[in-house]
Amino acid sequence: MDKSVIYLDHAAATPLDSRVLEAMQPYFSDAFYNPSSPYAPALNVRRAYDAAKQTLAQTIGGRGDELVMTAGATESINLAFTSIGGHVVTANIEHHAVLQVAKHHEHTIVAADEKGIVTAEVIKAAITPATRLVSIGLANNELGTIQPLRDIATAVKTERTKRLERGDMTPIYLHTDASQGAGLIDIHVSRLGVDLLTLNAGKVYGPKQVGLLWAAPHVRLAPQIMGGGQERGLRSGTENVAGTVGFSKAMELADKKRGNEVKRLQQLRDNLQKKLADAFPDAVISGHLKRRLPGHLHISFPGIDAERIVFALEMRGVLVATGSACAANKGTRSHVLTAIGLAPEVADGSLRLTLGQLSTQENTDQAAAIIIEEIIKERQRANA
Amino acid sequence: MDKSVIYLDHAAATPLDSRVLEAMQPYFSDAFYNPSSPYAPALNVRRAYDAAKQTLAQTIGGRGDELVMTAGATESINLAFTSIGGHVVTANIEHHAVLQVAKHHEHTIVAADEKGIVTAEVIKAAITPATRLVSIGLANNELGTIQPLRDIATAVKTERTKRLERGDMTPIYLHTDASQGAGLIDIHVSRLGVDLLTLNAGKVYGPKQVGLLWAAPHVRLAPQIMGGGQERGLRSGTENVAGTVGFSKAMELADKKRGNEVKRLQQLRDNLQKKLADAFPDAVISGHLKRRLPGHLHISFPGIDAERIVFALEMRGVLVATGSACAANKGTRSHVLTAIGLAPEVADGSLRLTLGQLSTQENTDQAAAIIIEEIIKERQRANA
Repeated sequence: MDKSVIYLDHAAATPLDSRVLEAMQPYFSDAFYNPSSPYAPALNVRRAYDAAKQTLAQTIGGRGDELVMTAGATESINLAFTSIGGHVVTANIEHHAVLQVAKHHEHTIVAADEKGIVTAEVIKAAITPATRLVSIGLANNELGTIQPLRDIATAVKTERTKRLERGDMTPIYLHTDASQGAGLIDIHVSRLGVDLLTLNAGKVYGPKQVGLLWAAPHVRLAPQIMGGGQERGLRSGTENVAGTVGFSKAMELADKKRGNEVKRLQQLRDNLQKKLADAFPDAVISGHLKRRLPGHLHISFPGIDAERIVFALEMRGVLVATGSACAANKGTRSHVLTAIGLAPEVADGSLRLTLGQLSTQENTDQAAAIIIEEIIKERQRANA
Repeated sequence: MDKSVIYLDHAAATPLDSRVLEAMQPYFSDAFYNPSSPYAPALNVRRAYDAAKQTLAQTIGGRGDELVMTAGATESINLAFTSIGGHVVTANIEHHAVLQVAKHHEHTIVAADEKGIVTAEVIKAAITPATRLVSIGLANNELGTIQPLRDIATAVKTERTKRLERGDMTPIYLHTDASQGAGLIDIHVSRLGVDLLTLNAGKVYGPKQVGLLWAAPHVRLAPQIMGGGQERGLRSGTENVAGTVGFSKAMELADKKRGNEVKRLQQLRDNLQKKLADAFPDAVISGHLKRRLPGHLHISFPGIDAERIVFALEMRGVLVATGSACAANKGTRSHVLTAIGLAPEVADGSLRLTLGQLSTQENTDQAAAIIIEEIIKERQRANA
């Protein structure tokens, strides 16, 4: 990347860590063998693949054979929903991947509160005797709000216990897409209390189109993609050895540096937030101020046109997002901002600033100064 | 790869061409942006992605926007079947990916002849008024037999015309998995006469877990994986830019060298075949001797145990396959060899030797000598 560019869109995509690429490299060339081939060099590739899955699983407190490797988070979410079926409960601030798949099932979409929090109470109220799946993202990709998953897990467990007591064998599971937040917050599956968990390598400085679905041993999955029977028959196709090794390395690296990185990002974000809020007293910071991803800042400047600001900032080398970088979002108002009740003139002036490994004190300060200048210019232009 | 190793399993997996990795590299690091992000560096990534799809499409005579990028051939096949639905016709020598998906539809499985050819006649006889999809692989992955796709296409067109004449609007499409054969034989979609075509980057010296489904403009696809709406809504998930750029480069390279490479491989294979057949007059060469992939040799040594030979050869640095390298095949007799009526004692003594870019005159000659030695040894052992 051009060194003069200041990247404030880590929630949309992250660069591949050079150590991750290094770990992947052998599986492109020297060890390119099909892991299903019978000779020793291929068996070594199979072992490397299984070991990578084991390491990956350990970062979430699971076991390698509880993972199904997928081509990213979207496929993982689709696999979770299609496997479990039945009535599903999810929230109006979820990612399109969740909302689109939910629409293909009987579903109840609950409302997040004005800070983007999905409470255990609204989930509890939405669960019906037919509910088999509750799916709530660990952290919202637009607001950075971290959900009270443990409370939601308790609600799901209470329902499960009630059903068992009355002899009703209908299962109910909790799924979370932890793509946003992985590497930054605790995603140990037992501590979260989830039955299914989705991860995305492309959000943690790993390769794109690599993801996984973890499912607890008591959850029975059903394949979406059939064929050669890879991934215990749950997802056929020659394994992505390089991608999985890279994902594993990325999660390992994230795990190691998490404590310090969280503090560092929080400090950078808080400084950035303070500078922008001081410069523009009418700025609106959305999402929950405490329960929030450390590098995440969602800020609105009422009355400005965020798309113009994104362009003006880009001209000055600062890359930021309006809403989330999802193909379906093009040119429409974010469903998340509508869901939390942001007035249209506030929503339309929203920037999502997400810090990460490319962020430094220096470039974040520079970005703050440039953003302030450009918003002042834009307001002057609008008032002229 | 260890230089002393002689790789004769190009049908199972191919090493990434160094020029392909070079083409991919920028999209791992410098140009890692999410193609759906709004700023110019991301739009450049989007352009590179679209250009790669366009180049890819040109190698098959299609257009970039007629492609859906997938995580390999298996997903592509699943997408084709799930989209078209209805009664499907396929053959008993097809890859597990096709056979497994076909089982989830009303289906007729026709029989290949003893050379592994699926004739237009058996297809014609199997088509019912409810048939919506005929799926026949361009070249069989075990035998290397190339199917008479143009004749099958004519049969499908005849049925289509008949339906239209009687006012029956039930569509009927021809799909081919061209994963085996791409880069070696003509896969121009109009010349093949197909409506849908599957390709796999991992078989043409491109990255693994990258594939595509081409569909003619008159074919309506339906998504299997829903979410952000990428690939015209047909396959959601952040795009695999590096993978697609690599696939495109791999197909371009294959196209350029095809003429010479085909001649070279054919000559190497014919020499190898002659040496083995001369040494073992009872050896059985399966598949069609003329309509066959240039680097492909399926040869059986009646009475030997192929699994022991694979191991013995591996000890001497020669990597070969028995049957196809597919997870589901482990320890069972190949369904393809059973389908073409090979006697069990012949089938169990089968090696699949597939030559490719790693093959040279020198290492193929060496391999021939080693194979001959090991089979003589094994026969002596068996007779002792």
